[in-house]
Amino acid sequence: MATILIAGGAGFLGRAMATQLLHRGDLVVCVDNFVTSERGELSELLDNSMFTLIEQDICVPIEQNEAIDAVVDLASPASPIDYLRLPIETLRVGSVGVLNLLDLARTQNARFLLSSTSEVYGDPLEHPQVESYWGNVNPIGPRSVYDESKRFAEAATMANRRTFGVDTRIARIFNTYGPGMRPNDGRVVSTFIRQALLGEDLTIFGDGSQTRSFCYVDDLVRGLIALLDADPSVVAEPINIGNPGEFTVAELAALVLGLIDTPSKVVHLDLPENDPTRRRPDITRAQELLGWSPTVPLADGVARTIEHMAATLL
Amino acid sequence: MATILIAGGAGFLGRAMATQLLHRGDLVVCVDNFVTSERGELSELLDNSMFTLIEQDICVPIEQNEAIDAVVDLASPASPIDYLRLPIETLRVGSVGVLNLLDLARTQNARFLLSSTSEVYGDPLEHPQVESYWGNVNPIGPRSVYDESKRFAEAATMANRRTFGVDTRIARIFNTYGPGMRPNDGRVVSTFIRQALLGEDLTIFGDGSQTRSFCYVDDLVRGLIALLDADPSVVAEPINIGNPGEFTVAELAALVLGLIDTPSKVVHLDLPENDPTRRRPDITRAQELLGWSPTVPLADGVARTIEHMAATLL
Repeated sequence: MATILIAGGAGFLGRAMATQLLHRGDLVVCVDNFVTSERGELSELLDNSMFTLIEQDICVPIEQNEAIDAVVDLASPASPIDYLRLPIETLRVGSVGVLNLLDLARTQNARFLLSSTSEVYGDPLEHPQVESYWGNVNPIGPRSVYDESKRFAEAATMANRRTFGVDTRIARIFNTYGPGMRPNDGRVVSTFIRQALLGEDLTIFGDGSQTRSFCYVDDLVRGLIALLDADPSVVAEPINIGNPGEFTVAELAALVLGLIDTPSKVVHLDLPENDPTRRRPDITRAQELLGWSPTVPLADGVARTIEHMAATLL
Repeated sequence: MATILIAGGAGFLGRAMATQLLHRGDLVVCVDNFVTSERGELSELLDNSMFTLIEQDICVPIEQNEAIDAVVDLASPASPIDYLRLPIETLRVGSVGVLNLLDLARTQNARFLLSSTSEVYGDPLEHPQVESYWGNVNPIGPRSVYDESKRFAEAATMANRRTFGVDTRIARIFNTYGPGMRPNDGRVVSTFIRQALLGEDLTIFGDGSQTRSFCYVDDLVRGLIALLDADPSVVAEPINIGNPGEFTVAELAALVLGLIDTPSKVVHLDLPENDPTRRRPDITRAQELLGWSPTVPLADGVARTIEHMAATLL
């Protein structure tokens, strides 16, 4: 049994990770300030005596007297509609917040897991993306508040490993979906499902030929936990966690329309600035070092997400 | 007459900028914590009644009751030997420090000038470097504590411009040299001059075919002041400030050896990790928007630097 502090524990990934950790018997301390989540979403977890909530902004240093075995950073607005609405908060949580969590891990002699992102690759010139690729990010574009904060957070994590020997791990998380997503989070899977359930037209930005990889949330969290559990010596460098299945946005729309009885059609809107055209993880490193691969096919995962979102929305 | 706060005002560029601003009649408030500079280097400036010193780390928010017209950020370890020795401090000043200075500029309704760096281009795949180039930076290498902090600082600066309308300017500064450099700052010009003056061999990393551009400090500061003075509407995006003259490191060594009567020879050492192979600014934007170009030829500038360093060292 370990005690694991999850910053951003009330978010989509945070709740899913807390659930899996509690299931195997760990204690979970959730830290969240509910900027992009709601306390109500924690009601089931709060019923569990192994789960504790600290309502706090991690930009304020965390006082923690109990011993902690691991600090997991899942705290940041992560959907473009959120971080474009909260640019300063995103910059602060990715810098001040991450530095505070690293201080906590160092003083507690705890493991530290940073949730980085495929966004550190930007609009990649190499495909699929291998961890050794340095990325193609616009440092001054609107999306840079998220992308550059995560690149900064990786640099800060590696510096704490090199300088203080903090036992760090970095996951580069690719697009994730599943039950528990907010219907209005602006991500393509949740948007299409919400639109189809409500009989609205599905909005594709551009011609829909841009590709994405979609990882089912339970698969992804299993990968994060494998990374957290791994031997320190094998996880010094970032590891992609995502599903290498590559789908065009148009294919995803067709899949959703095929699973829902709806009058919705597809409509096309202009592509936003610096929207990546292709994104697919090379997960060789995760397979070899963690023995991890995703297992849930897109059609199954989307069907489960539809079922869950229908219960919420309709 | 304007009041200009210079964070890092005791450093090499800070002192040179303070000197030019005082010369034209501005008031200068210098904020420094002397991490990579010394109070003694300010003695001449402190004799000037238009110059004030606040000894403070900018990672602590700055209380400033007097009205400020501009905030200039020149605060960071900037030489590789400094930021590799001070990785956490470099990350903090480039994130927490810059966010604090941006808050100060916003609440004071002051202009904000960020000193960014050619390091945001990393080991560039495009040559020469135009401001629209997104760069090729290793986010997890030892140098990332500086490179990624500066990319983060650019993102933070642009976010404050977009969100709050702060009147921001970003200078991407290329290699700068001149009187006032520390002989032991690890930069190639100061190192070669120091070695030649002391009769030590000149150490070239690699075969010396890597190129650098070298801007004389007075030229550079004139460019920074032109950027600070420019009409807000023309300086929304970063502007390269540097000298486009491109020299190999071997050529620089030969120039220094030609100007100093010394028994020193050239020796070669291994190239450090992620050392950029080529670096040269495209300064079209600075020429067109600021009417600025460097004027001091390398041989003249190096001769003046030798004279100054000889007086200090010998």
